[in-house]
Amino acid sequence: MINTTFIFRTTLMSICLAGIMSGCSMNPNKPAALTIAQQGNFAAGGKIITSEGNFDDKQLFKPAGQTLHGDHASVFYQIPENPHPYPLVFLHGAGQSAKTWGTTPDGREGFQTIFLRQHFPVYLVDQPRRGQAGQSTVGAEVPATTNDQAWFNMFRLGRYPNFFKGVQFSQDPQALNQYFRQMTPNTGAYDEQVISDAMVEVLKRSGDAVLITHSQGGGPGWWTAIKSNQVKGIVAYEPGSGFVFPEHELPDPMPSATGTLAATPIKMADFQKLTKIPIIVYYGDNIPTEKNGYAGQENAGQDNWRVRLKMAQLWVDKINQHGGHAQLVHLPDIGIYGNTHFAFSDSNSDQIAQLLVDWLQKNKLD
Amino acid sequence: MINTTFIFRTTLMSICLAGIMSGCSMNPNKPAALTIAQQGNFAAGGKIITSEGNFDDKQLFKPAGQTLHGDHASVFYQIPENPHPYPLVFLHGAGQSAKTWGTTPDGREGFQTIFLRQHFPVYLVDQPRRGQAGQSTVGAEVPATTNDQAWFNMFRLGRYPNFFKGVQFSQDPQALNQYFRQMTPNTGAYDEQVISDAMVEVLKRSGDAVLITHSQGGGPGWWTAIKSNQVKGIVAYEPGSGFVFPEHELPDPMPSATGTLAATPIKMADFQKLTKIPIIVYYGDNIPTEKNGYAGQENAGQDNWRVRLKMAQLWVDKINQHGGHAQLVHLPDIGIYGNTHFAFSDSNSDQIAQLLVDWLQKNKLD
Repeated sequence: MINTTFIFRTTLMSICLAGIMSGCSMNPNKPAALTIAQQGNFAAGGKIITSEGNFDDKQLFKPAGQTLHGDHASVFYQIPENPHPYPLVFLHGAGQSAKTWGTTPDGREGFQTIFLRQHFPVYLVDQPRRGQAGQSTVGAEVPATTNDQAWFNMFRLGRYPNFFKGVQFSQDPQALNQYFRQMTPNTGAYDEQVISDAMVEVLKRSGDAVLITHSQGGGPGWWTAIKSNQVKGIVAYEPGSGFVFPEHELPDPMPSATGTLAATPIKMADFQKLTKIPIIVYYGDNIPTEKNGYAGQENAGQDNWRVRLKMAQLWVDKINQHGGHAQLVHLPDIGIYGNTHFAFSDSNSDQIAQLLVDWLQKNKLD
Repeated sequence: MINTTFIFRTTLMSICLAGIMSGCSMNPNKPAALTIAQQGNFAAGGKIITSEGNFDDKQLFKPAGQTLHGDHASVFYQIPENPHPYPLVFLHGAGQSAKTWGTTPDGREGFQTIFLRQHFPVYLVDQPRRGQAGQSTVGAEVPATTNDQAWFNMFRLGRYPNFFKGVQFSQDPQALNQYFRQMTPNTGAYDEQVISDAMVEVLKRSGDAVLITHSQGGGPGWWTAIKSNQVKGIVAYEPGSGFVFPEHELPDPMPSATGTLAATPIKMADFQKLTKIPIIVYYGDNIPTEKNGYAGQENAGQDNWRVRLKMAQLWVDKINQHGGHAQLVHLPDIGIYGNTHFAFSDSNSDQIAQLLVDWLQKNKLD
């Protein structure tokens, strides 16, 4: 019985791997139905704070003597039938939420559904103090600051109002509208330790898993793998901050048009934990490099990524120097052009997904 | 082909309707897999604000000349195979998000999955300025105010620290932990008009649908049906504010231990739109009434609902007086006891779901 199931699934998987562009369907116009064994939500981790005094149930909203539950992650998960052993746990970037991994801005299936079709359980995290995990143990102001154009440039769609030539982003105005509306603010201070503490608890629920991070999620991603031995691999799309280095082997800080990027010093024993698991880091196109003559360096939104790509290369080298298994893929170097800061939801997201499928397979994480 | 599919589905539905307690499975310990034809996210509606001046791409985060997209709803939807014609569109209450309709605090399947199993498409809304739809065109402060005990009493789990006798809520401390962590704050002022404007756009995407609201969602729910003719029925769990009455037929304001509840005056022509669709309103147990001798009236958390239940009855009567089709079900009156403010996720949520299935069927909304 087990063998039959295994063969059946292996056959299905082969068809699916070949058919990823059509959503694993016999009819390319209508993707096959998804078969979900289980789905649901949970909160993971978090803290409880308490105000001094006594609760008075005649004055319900007087804080005295009351508690507040906050700083947890909020997770939506879906487990397909015949799942791979390792779930994929997705952690979004700055100003984003679990929605990042859903439908793409131009309305196609996102990594959430693409990888369900590939029989991976998916765990989609709203990090502490963001989205549906908004209840925070520290207060915050949420100003309604106009900044769409800043993100347009920072996320390398182009140099506002112009898109980059050949950018992997739909020119339909509705796609840009959906993209801007993915943003959702912090409801408490961003804190890598608070986030990674909650992520450790997410992993306890998901079981051993592959962690997939985006941008600002990179930093808490490394910390999650330092704090938990349940992270079996990390895939980081354009990590943007929190590059951890052994405290006595720090690279020089790197000035850029958006400020100076400095490494985060950590204990060697912590750093070494990151050398035990396979790690892959992807960066997209339109990043100024020596190779392309620093084209675009005068645009702050692009220059921000010049130093991050450089730092990421030093970081990967440092991991490997200490016996690790890290790899940096700058997509143009393998002939994939036009990707923005969101390769996984770009117009060529099926191609980007296939790279990940191959990497998971190569590292026996499927 | 259509007939075969129809018969197959009808047969499945009969098995499912009989088997709702077991999640429509042959094996009560393992619910059958869900078959999802399509799922994804989208933002609906919203506004764009613009700061005066010119955008300077050397100073990315200077607001001048930039826009902000905000005040949209964020929606996760799932469409099962062989769907009923009318989707269910779920709008949460105060301090909640789409997560409200997911897994129950004690870890069972929520209405999201229960109704998918019943072949209803589900659309789960984060309202403007909440959760994953956090980007707001007006700023807000998010204080970390301790108030768990207030909600414990307001949501009628009991009188803190004691649960009500026979309450339909798990006594496992982990259930209460999950419940408190469902709360997520406003990231901009609560505004019925902003919410209902976005809901109208949600309906344009879902198509004609049945709207299911909870608590504070009741008010924007009525407005959605006033503004859109795509609402084919409303199910309101414990509406808590925004009771709309014809401007010249207002009931007297009702004082309570949590303040005075007043009706919202609207034009008769608007009110009459609510008389054209079937509406059902449910309230749970432990609400002080004449019938139960106002037991619990001295507890503010309970007394809050005394006036809301009373106002809801006047509202239903007013709808029917003008030719409408509204019904109020006070659950203890039909022999269902112990329900909190969240009947749909209480310990007896399967029973509450069956009431809704029956109502949808009776009103030809299935």
